[in-house]
Amino acid sequence: MDVPEDIPGDVPHAVVTGAAGFIGSHLVTKLLTGPCHVTAVDVVPWSAAHRLRGAGPDPRLRYHEADLRDTRTLRGLTDGARWVFHLGANTENRSWAQSGRADLDTTVAGTVALLEALAEHPPRCVVMASSQLVYGDQDGHGTPPDGALSPARPPRPTTRFGAGKAAAEAFLCAAAHETGFRAVAARLSNIVGAGMRRGIVHDFVGRLRQDSGRLTVLGDGSQTRSYLHVSDCVTALTTLAEAPGEARCAVPQAFEAYDVCNTDATSAADVARIAVAEFPGADSEIAYGTGERGWRGDIPTVRVSPGRLLGLGWRPRLTSAAAVRTAVRELIAESTPAPTADPESGRPGTSALLRPGHG
Amino acid sequence: MDVPEDIPGDVPHAVVTGAAGFIGSHLVTKLLTGPCHVTAVDVVPWSAAHRLRGAGPDPRLRYHEADLRDTRTLRGLTDGARWVFHLGANTENRSWAQSGRADLDTTVAGTVALLEALAEHPPRCVVMASSQLVYGDQDGHGTPPDGALSPARPPRPTTRFGAGKAAAEAFLCAAAHETGFRAVAARLSNIVGAGMRRGIVHDFVGRLRQDSGRLTVLGDGSQTRSYLHVSDCVTALTTLAEAPGEARCAVPQAFEAYDVCNTDATSAADVARIAVAEFPGADSEIAYGTGERGWRGDIPTVRVSPGRLLGLGWRPRLTSAAAVRTAVRELIAESTPAPTADPESGRPGTSALLRPGHG
Repeated sequence: MDVPEDIPGDVPHAVVTGAAGFIGSHLVTKLLTGPCHVTAVDVVPWSAAHRLRGAGPDPRLRYHEADLRDTRTLRGLTDGARWVFHLGANTENRSWAQSGRADLDTTVAGTVALLEALAEHPPRCVVMASSQLVYGDQDGHGTPPDGALSPARPPRPTTRFGAGKAAAEAFLCAAAHETGFRAVAARLSNIVGAGMRRGIVHDFVGRLRQDSGRLTVLGDGSQTRSYLHVSDCVTALTTLAEAPGEARCAVPQAFEAYDVCNTDATSAADVARIAVAEFPGADSEIAYGTGERGWRGDIPTVRVSPGRLLGLGWRPRLTSAAAVRTAVRELIAESTPAPTADPESGRPGTSALLRPGHG
Repeated sequence: MDVPEDIPGDVPHAVVTGAAGFIGSHLVTKLLTGPCHVTAVDVVPWSAAHRLRGAGPDPRLRYHEADLRDTRTLRGLTDGARWVFHLGANTENRSWAQSGRADLDTTVAGTVALLEALAEHPPRCVVMASSQLVYGDQDGHGTPPDGALSPARPPRPTTRFGAGKAAAEAFLCAAAHETGFRAVAARLSNIVGAGMRRGIVHDFVGRLRQDSGRLTVLGDGSQTRSYLHVSDCVTALTTLAEAPGEARCAVPQAFEAYDVCNTDATSAADVARIAVAEFPGADSEIAYGTGERGWRGDIPTVRVSPGRLLGLGWRPRLTSAAAVRTAVRELIAESTPAPTADPESGRPGTSALLRPGHG
């Protein structure tokens, strides 16, 4: 890929790890609508970074195939960066027996190696993609009567994936204190949209492609979750990167965790109905299983709120149902050769990360 | 070491990792005063397990030199165990730059490998040695006015050591849920006693040995901490292993965290005065530094409470000052050839772990 080797020192520079992934590719595309240069890092070669192809070629984008655990390479790539968006991690939430070592080797060890790379020339801020699954099962741990979760609750992960995220957060917190940068853990909840490769929305579309006559839902369909469109997730991440944490709380904090989710929620049954309604020519029968848990370790209802993020001025553009509907349409359209456009144009503002007119 | 290769199936069996360490060796000695067989595991060979020598030879003790990351070996050693006391971990709390990979490679990866070893034949309970340092810097995170900490607070570690413990806790929590065993994180605070090799009490005695005329305290001496004698720590660990978690809370919990500390606290200045008073022939001048933090990432005052542990019936035998005094005496005595006796005899009770008359 034809990219500049060096980034001028006076130009804001963002590094994105896991840049070829679902959220990473949307984030890179969005960042390039602003004034900054972007160093995109992923373990896959550029030839396999299909989801990122829409973002290049752009003279302000450089792509590097690198393993996060290669501290020396990461040190070179992050030197001079103002923001690091750390999205590189294991993304499979599977049972303990199935999951192997990816959470330890990729999520945790990759994060530690990246943090070591940042120690000498720390950025202004590191925003790490974490997960609502760090909360896990809070029953009996003194949760409030409405069961609402917040970063003030301790993590109680029920899966190795959630544990890996909680572990990476802990190392991020320690590094932020010792190295001296602002760190944000963005606890993502069910992000949906073009390029997604797992999760209930992706599964339903895939199953309808195979058999549009019948859609089987794991569990009784009552599992209720927030769904956030990836375009809203990306604006949440840039909002968190720029939030002047010091100005907004009495005591400056090196590390903060934020829930990144929608302001409403929808049920698995609703997701199934939306998928069937949007699928071309489908009038599928929807069959339900039993029980509110799909598998051991699954959490029936996760009660997170984006309250702290709303406090920073961020607003989701799409409701949970609209996010699911948009994602289903995008996934259906992915089989067509038309390129996927960034669904949201630059918004007005004085952001150093995102400015209007650079899209 | 002359030990039985197989343990009868009907005999309660405890596994202790990190058994050759400071707390591990005291725990093994204590467990052998009860009815159970003990498998002691440590990465050091028996010839280097000096602190454990007092516990052997005993026909109910087998010692195995093994790396925790050797899942296959650990699977064989833990098969049939009723309790696993997991104390094997990095024990150096150093700055981010100095600490290297020990927290990731030993504390976290060792814990994950052990948990994998337990997946097929899980024990009844795993008690893991964690640390008060998982709390880290809670300022500004909505702490109550008195600053009291509890496991209901989220971890905010300021050191890589604290992050490693928080990370290991997260994986323990997930494994307990998925594999199905009771798990307890025992967050230890300043355990002191014979065999200790680091910490302020050990440092002061070491410095007085080198120069009994002058003792220099890092910081202004106002840092106040709870100190718990290792004999009280060991009874806390066995209490946690036997606590019927299900009976004591409305909802059965797979994972619980407990603060293991004293009911009172004492200052660094007091520790210095006790050390000087106990050191033979010393009338040292005590010199203080400035500032309440010894180094970046240090926490001036950690406000933990053993309240939940007291609720299980556990009581510390020694106050913080008495624990320090006892530890100083024990450290001074260590230079003499007399063997270190277990300071606490078996206590009456119906414990399956500890019974009177087996000491």
